[in-house]
Amino acid sequence: MAEMSARPRRAQASPEIERLVTLLAKLPGFGPRSARRAALHLLKKRDGLMQPLSQALADAAQSVRTCQRCGNLDTSDPCSVCTDPARDASTLCVVVDVADLWALERSGAYQGHYHVLGGVLSALDGVRPEDLRIASLLARVQAGGVSEVVLALAATVEGQTTAHYLGDLLADQGVSVTKLAHGVPVGGELDHLDDGTLLAALKARRSV
Amino acid sequence: MAEMSARPRRAQASPEIERLVTLLAKLPGFGPRSARRAALHLLKKRDGLMQPLSQALADAAQSVRTCQRCGNLDTSDPCSVCTDPARDASTLCVVVDVADLWALERSGAYQGHYHVLGGVLSALDGVRPEDLRIASLLARVQAGGVSEVVLALAATVEGQTTAHYLGDLLADQGVSVTKLAHGVPVGGELDHLDDGTLLAALKARRSV
Repeated sequence: MAEMSARPRRAQASPEIERLVTLLAKLPGFGPRSARRAALHLLKKRDGLMQPLSQALADAAQSVRTCQRCGNLDTSDPCSVCTDPARDASTLCVVVDVADLWALERSGAYQGHYHVLGGVLSALDGVRPEDLRIASLLARVQAGGVSEVVLALAATVEGQTTAHYLGDLLADQGVSVTKLAHGVPVGGELDHLDDGTLLAALKARRSV
Repeated sequence: MAEMSARPRRAQASPEIERLVTLLAKLPGFGPRSARRAALHLLKKRDGLMQPLSQALADAAQSVRTCQRCGNLDTSDPCSVCTDPARDASTLCVVVDVADLWALERSGAYQGHYHVLGGVLSALDGVRPEDLRIASLLARVQAGGVSEVVLALAATVEGQTTAHYLGDLLADQGVSVTKLAHGVPVGGELDHLDDGTLLAALKARRSV
């Protein structure tokens, strides 16, 4: 029992390493263990990874700003999407987060402009319309030139609540308001799908 | 089919963000998707996380060095373990990596000095004795003052090959060479253990 009760002497890693581990552990997907692993990996690749990452973080923190028009993150404001003349400014796609904008851009399926809300309405988390980029969305629509607003919000309760709210808000603005289709994900197996998705896919069935 | 064959127009995230994502994706445990998530998280917490992390990376890259005596990472060389007068210098614990040293320090169960090999012998990966910190281990033992060398190497084929090699090397140096006990992990359930561990635990059984 002696070794359990005696307070053992432990070497701390140096404060510099401890601090690095603590900060890395705050990244999404990282915990204390993976942060330690990452810190060691970085210390082994100082010139190839650690210094460049430090520089990239400083560069991005300094140069990346939020587009005042759409909420996208870019080094220019308005962002490169808003200023691209080849894109269709008459269509606005409303997304919750920049990550969703990136996902739609990766798909290459969308050629219009965006509007990043910055969150979803949530009574539970106390997120009200004025906490989101909703006033600026309405202002963009009212400024004219917009014919369609695509609501690309998550098919969660809060996402759909937000979609309903926006649908009501935009109903008498003379724009068509659409939302993404529900259905079977491409490559998805039927027996892994929830009933709601299957129901939606069945309802929206099309002739082949 | 038109939308499939036409090369769609896609906005790239700014080069600063792309570069950050690319570097983050090189961290162990991160892929492109989690790196994008982490980059967005960082961009949202610039002052609280992004700038400090950049600074911590730069600080650690600049100040942390490898202890020339034991291979530990610390801001001082020799490291704080090697120079701690309260620790027992007559016991050397041989570990593969600094991560293993940290794990043993967290346990608080070890009060001696360390020797970090920097890898395991591997014919497959072409790791030979001269690629590891083995010559300096032998030199430390031959310099005198060491009575026991604890081989805390992984219970893998390569870890045990390395342990055998070191055991032979140190056999006629007048030190006792020990290794960690095999057995049931504390909190481990028997039916989740492999046969090798069960066999080792049974062989090493003790009277209660």
